[in-house]
Amino acid sequence: MAFRLESLDDLPFFENKLERNGCRVERVGGADKYELGEAIRFTAPSEHRVELYYDMTIVGNGLPTTNPPPYPDGLLGIHPPRMDHTLLTTPDTPASLHFWQEVMGFRLTEQVVTPEGAPLAIWLERTRTPHDLAFIPGKPGGLHHFAFWLDSWEAIGRSADVLARAGVQIDTGPTRHGITRGHTIYFFDSSGNRNEVFTGGYWADPRMTPITWTADEMWMGIFYWDRCEKGAFISNYT
Amino acid sequence: MAFRLESLDDLPFFENKLERNGCRVERVGGADKYELGEAIRFTAPSEHRVELYYDMTIVGNGLPTTNPPPYPDGLLGIHPPRMDHTLLTTPDTPASLHFWQEVMGFRLTEQVVTPEGAPLAIWLERTRTPHDLAFIPGKPGGLHHFAFWLDSWEAIGRSADVLARAGVQIDTGPTRHGITRGHTIYFFDSSGNRNEVFTGGYWADPRMTPITWTADEMWMGIFYWDRCEKGAFISNYT
Amino acid sequence: MAFRLESLDDLPFFENKLERNGCRVERVGGADKYELGEAIRFTAPSEHRVELYYDMTIVGNGLPTTNPPPYPDGLLGIHPPRMDHTLLTTPDTPASLHFWQEVMGFRLTEQVVTPEGAPLAIWLERTRTPHDLAFIPGKPGGLHHFAFWLDSWEAIGRSADVLARAGVQIDTGPTRHGITRGHTIYFFDSSGNRNEVFTGGYWADPRMTPITWTADEMWMGIFYWDRCEKGAFISNYT
Amino acid sequence: MAFRLESLDDLPFFENKLERNGCRVERVGGADKYELGEAIRFTAPSEHRVELYYDMTIVGNGLPTTNPPPYPDGLLGIHPPRMDHTLLTTPDTPASLHFWQEVMGFRLTEQVVTPEGAPLAIWLERTRTPHDLAFIPGKPGGLHHFAFWLDSWEAIGRSADVLARAGVQIDTGPTRHGITRGHTIYFFDSSGNRNEVFTGGYWADPRMTPITWTADEMWMGIFYWDRCEKGAFISNYT
Repeated sequence: MAFRLESLDDLPFFENKLERNGCRVERVGGADKYELGEAIRFTAPSEHRVELYYDMTIVGNGLPTTNPPPYPDGLLGIHPPRMDHTLLTTPDTPASLHFWQEVMGFRLTEQVVTPEGAPLAIWLERTRTPHDLAFIPGKPGGLHHFAFWLDSWEAIGRSADVLARAGVQIDTGPTRHGITRGHTIYFFDSSGNRNEVFTGGYWADPRMTPITWTADEMWMGIFYWDRCEKGAFISNYT
Repeated sequence: MAFRLESLDDLPFFENKLERNGCRVERVGGADKYELGEAIRFTAPSEHRVELYYDMTIVGNGLPTTNPPPYPDGLLGIHPPRMDHTLLTTPDTPASLHFWQEVMGFRLTEQVVTPEGAPLAIWLERTRTPHDLAFIPGKPGGLHHFAFWLDSWEAIGRSADVLARAGVQIDTGPTRHGITRGHTIYFFDSSGNRNEVFTGGYWADPRMTPITWTADEMWMGIFYWDRCEKGAFISNYT
Repeated sequence: MAFRLESLDDLPFFENKLERNGCRVERVGGADKYELGEAIRFTAPSEHRVELYYDMTIVGNGLPTTNPPPYPDGLLGIHPPRMDHTLLTTPDTPASLHFWQEVMGFRLTEQVVTPEGAPLAIWLERTRTPHDLAFIPGKPGGLHHFAFWLDSWEAIGRSADVLARAGVQIDTGPTRHGITRGHTIYFFDSSGNRNEVFTGGYWADPRMTPITWTADEMWMGIFYWDRCEKGAFISNYT
Repeated sequence: MAFRLESLDDLPFFENKLERNGCRVERVGGADKYELGEAIRFTAPSEHRVELYYDMTIVGNGLPTTNPPPYPDGLLGIHPPRMDHTLLTTPDTPASLHFWQEVMGFRLTEQVVTPEGAPLAIWLERTRTPHDLAFIPGKPGGLHHFAFWLDSWEAIGRSADVLARAGVQIDTGPTRHGITRGHTIYFFDSSGNRNEVFTGGYWADPRMTPITWTADEMWMGIFYWDRCEKGAFISNYT
């Protein structure tokens, strides 16, 4: 997992901050790494490997930068315009919340809390979306899914057609999350990884009060329409 | 269940035809029945009670018939513009197919067949839709669901919001049928009856070759996206 | 313009009826005509040539009739699933209304009337749609447009993208008709004919009271959103 | 027009930077101003009055912050979830580009350029949208429109229904911009101000190469579908 920094000065800033917080930081990228500029790599408390970089070759989106049409020609299949977010697993959600808020500067948008009020699952952002990164309870270094953005609920429906036609196993959906309010399908790719196509959600005001879901109502948060009867998203952890 | 006849002459026509086919036909409606003109009533082979009428008071749709806006004011909830179809159960699908095609003049649009080629489930129309009436195997006189028409996949999504918000139990969906190609949600009303909201499908050419689903692939026909892993629609009968 | 008959018996029925109403009827089709069965041809009062046939080779829609997916593979461009209706011009709307209702058995769904109440523009159906055929004032034998069906408002928006990208001149839209309540784009093909892509509208109950638009409010009927400021649809005729 | 700062330290930072760039800056807000914390006010080169603030009372969106449903109850009319952007006029686009990029730290996403390559119209962002602020040629201190966000193309269509039903004059649309790729309706409110409802567009990567529209093709940029034949957006200025 890699994040882009806003300026080159952020590279030594995060290098120092991470080391002060007990992370071993490694310099990677630069002249000897294809397409990647100077970068740092470290392991987050949840045991996920993270890279921070400022520069990377921009490959474009297939459109010219002068008088472009609104979409590239010859699009096939689901053709999401971009990646949206990642949901990871951690055995220690409070530690990940502390790390990503205090050290990495992310903002908490939503959380599921235990009856005692401790964070059980967390959604975090840096780009005004409801989540760029999220954690649910689980094994260290685990991946629940990564998500591709689609532009509409109709595109979610069409991608279900594409998946079914290609014989891809749909895990859940089309449905809607209460958390993030987004519309979604989960499905498994040929490597066995869970993928998501996602749309909707809201513009996250950096000053918003984080939304809290209590353990007894969190099913509504996970899948708003069917209240999780289709799956058992976090059920193993509570 | 009641169907409207195209002309008053159809009343004695069907009266005779039904009696020749062994149905006991009763005259109902007329002067002494509120809002219903002269009509006949009989019991179909599947033990469902059916009425045929020509005249019934038209109550309108809330819009004026001069210079109307395209929708009534103050619509609330799901607000489907009309009913679409009914799915009934029968222990003898071939008998129902024979009756509704040969006696009642419906056209077969789609069917699930047994490995021997006998009709197991049937979809029938009189109004160019993929189905006005359908039968699946089950107890005599049984109702699987009746369906309300919605105008778009987005309206299907909004109705899932309305149902969830009202605490209504969603049975299946939003999803898509392979059979009829329509988009759908099944849910239970407060009487315990299954209802459907439905959109899409196709214009049924009266000359179309009926579409046949074989028993091994019928799951794709029932729910195209998830191939019936969410439910067990006909599974008890095969 | 050609219409299909429900049974072969309708061929002599309409042949006689048309001749009694002063139309010269010609037998066409049959063994010597490729793909077309026995048919009749006549000229309607509006000077449009019309054919009625019972049989024509069915070419299918690219899908198998056993276990079909819900749409053919490799669809390109706008790919409408079917034709929907035609709008013709006539110098004598009342004559066309009489002919298509009384002789041909169409039902009137909507009409624009003059201040004196005479029909100025008419919409007619035989298949429960808001219109299979319509007439506006204009030269005899004239074509205003023919329309292709699309399945959704999102498909209307995508077809605007396809048209613009291909350099096709859009005449009007995307917009919405008050008459028929459908969503629409008018555009010109390379022959200079106006085409329409159309969706929505309503299911026309054969018993519905025809909707009447008065001359002073008919702009709302033609284009509901912009009240005809984009075009001058019927303005030359009133 | 007011923008929120990311931290309280940004207040003296911008105060100094603006004064060094020749703007007279005034302190406003704070204890004596209802609901607004400490803030600064200045006049931009385009003669628009701008405020920068860090703190303002948050009034919420009608939803609880614990276990909220995805939308408030009883929504009426168009009900946009938030404002999106503003389009202003300036007699000196290059000066506004310099000011908002160099002094205010906005990023240029798209521009219309003169045949000589000078910026004629500019689109700028700070929050990953295709535009938070834009300028076209015109009188100093002028407003072209401000825009409300909607969640889908279907919501754009529904808002056209709401506007038409309420007798509101639609200026242009529903249509699509080539610039920003968003879907849109322009309409006039009862004060005579132009408003927009807007959806779509793209996620603006802070490193994206700004998109350039040449004067001869800018019509495609302004309204992609109809290439500006409906209006004359910038035509007075070129």
